[in-house]
Amino acid sequence: MAQLTLAVDAMGGDAGLPVTVPAVAELLRRHEEVSVLMVGQQDALASALNKAGLDQHPRVSLVAASEVVTMDDPVTVALRGKRDSSMRVAINQVRDGQAQAAVSAGNTGALMAVSRFVLKTLPGVDRPAICTAIPTRTGHCHMLDLGANVDSEPEHLLQFALMGAAVVRAVDAVEKPRVALLNIGEEDIKGNEQIKQAALLLQAHPALNYTGYIEGNGIFAGEADVVVCDGFVGNVALKTMEGVASMISHMIREEIGSSWLNKLSGLLALPVLKGLKGRLDPERYNGASLVGLNGVVVKSHGGVGVAGFTAALEVALLEARRNVPGLIGKAL
Amino acid sequence: MAQLTLAVDAMGGDAGLPVTVPAVAELLRRHEEVSVLMVGQQDALASALNKAGLDQHPRVSLVAASEVVTMDDPVTVALRGKRDSSMRVAINQVRDGQAQAAVSAGNTGALMAVSRFVLKTLPGVDRPAICTAIPTRTGHCHMLDLGANVDSEPEHLLQFALMGAAVVRAVDAVEKPRVALLNIGEEDIKGNEQIKQAALLLQAHPALNYTGYIEGNGIFAGEADVVVCDGFVGNVALKTMEGVASMISHMIREEIGSSWLNKLSGLLALPVLKGLKGRLDPERYNGASLVGLNGVVVKSHGGVGVAGFTAALEVALLEARRNVPGLIGKAL
Repeated sequence: MAQLTLAVDAMGGDAGLPVTVPAVAELLRRHEEVSVLMVGQQDALASALNKAGLDQHPRVSLVAASEVVTMDDPVTVALRGKRDSSMRVAINQVRDGQAQAAVSAGNTGALMAVSRFVLKTLPGVDRPAICTAIPTRTGHCHMLDLGANVDSEPEHLLQFALMGAAVVRAVDAVEKPRVALLNIGEEDIKGNEQIKQAALLLQAHPALNYTGYIEGNGIFAGEADVVVCDGFVGNVALKTMEGVASMISHMIREEIGSSWLNKLSGLLALPVLKGLKGRLDPERYNGASLVGLNGVVVKSHGGVGVAGFTAALEVALLEARRNVPGLIGKAL
Repeated sequence: MAQLTLAVDAMGGDAGLPVTVPAVAELLRRHEEVSVLMVGQQDALASALNKAGLDQHPRVSLVAASEVVTMDDPVTVALRGKRDSSMRVAINQVRDGQAQAAVSAGNTGALMAVSRFVLKTLPGVDRPAICTAIPTRTGHCHMLDLGANVDSEPEHLLQFALMGAAVVRAVDAVEKPRVALLNIGEEDIKGNEQIKQAALLLQAHPALNYTGYIEGNGIFAGEADVVVCDGFVGNVALKTMEGVASMISHMIREEIGSSWLNKLSGLLALPVLKGLKGRLDPERYNGASLVGLNGVVVKSHGGVGVAGFTAALEVALLEARRNVPGLIGKAL
């Protein structure tokens, strides 16, 4: 397989180095053709690489960056204040052709703003979007936008649809992805004006396999490969999913702890609960793509562990290998 | 306790009489002070009441209505075409003082339009909203609007907040309900213009205990008693919850069926799964209030069974007993 290089913001996320370094070690073990540029503060990063036995690794290079964008830094600070941040320098590697993708667990707003500033959007893209895979009964779908844009116009929703379809064609090898527009089902209103206008645009586009409206519950039924929505709505839906799944897992633990009989039956139910956890594990679905940019940038959730960050690295690798930005550029 | 009369659209919902009649029988068993006006097509309804032994019941009266609003009827048909529908005649009973609340499992758009036309909105209310209880880790919260309004203006969100707080004060006896505004967390955008303006209005209102923004996952963490949002966003969030919960229950069944070991451990896990189901059962949380009207109207999910419809009847009973419309009128 062709050689590929990832640029990793080694300092980003709630944990930083203790998560990013072991995840990179795992990625290098899995993929012989992959090299990694670890971007971060010289001393701390060199020491972490050394401890992990990666300092002499032939496929790891340290790229120094003197600053770190914190999870709370406003966009202006990330963009204008910290020009030598690990996040920014990692993205610079993609711009300069040193790497084919960048991954960061840093704050989403900053990552989107810096990526957009450094890489620029692809021709035909007004607004980049955040896109991620969501588990469904039958596998998964891709949903966008998840928070980069609020108050999206119908033309933007059309662009999200084209970008999402390109992602699914590339990473899932689905030739004609079913594209649906997230809407509500009340008969008298059936969506707001933007949605109605967007439906007309999606319906009329020759390159799209538009299947119509989808409701919040339809996302998980496997009715669509691409679910298109405004970023405000998409972010609320994504966080709602996380909240419900986490509440249910909390309740299962409470039920198991509620009596001796339940403790026993919970213990015996471990295979079932483990199987369930494997299918819904948020770490497994970690790694959201910033699509519409002139290069691959993947955002990891800030709070994930090694397995989660590794999943985000895999997303970046796949998108770089399949040249998702090139395909999006062609689609738009 | 004071005598109360409910008007029930006996024909509404996917099943109609086989669900509404047994649910009413159960309600009458539970509450000696409650009478019910069963509204529906004379012959079918009389026969169903007879079979259930309710035809001679001293607290049941049959009110004839010649038509039925179907789940697919557009609002115009419900409003102008079927003026003698069971839905409309049930709401007429509230307007005429024959009943203190109406309950229907008919289609939401039609129910909202007919209720608004017949009962009118309370003074100070521009737009009625749909409000329901949502399970959380610590109990439940109330969320509105869930689909009656799209593109809500900041002033409407303020009205939803005041109405939701009045509902919680009345039905949960919480003196100062914590009111939160549903938003997204991305640092650079932090919501759209409507949300920012609405936050200022909620913050400034002396009667509201406004606690700030809440994200989709915060709904289930028990952070707020009232979650305020636009109806488009709220409906997507509600359906998303339903979709995730239903997917997880589907996956548990699949995991249990996936091997003999899992079948056995699933069987042994029944007490845990039953306890979980009891806490998340959508039938238990059935019954959404149409708030802001000059009378109590409760919408049942169209697809629920007897237990679910009974839960909706209980919601109507409680709101009528606590005079929720009167309290909302005072709050606005």
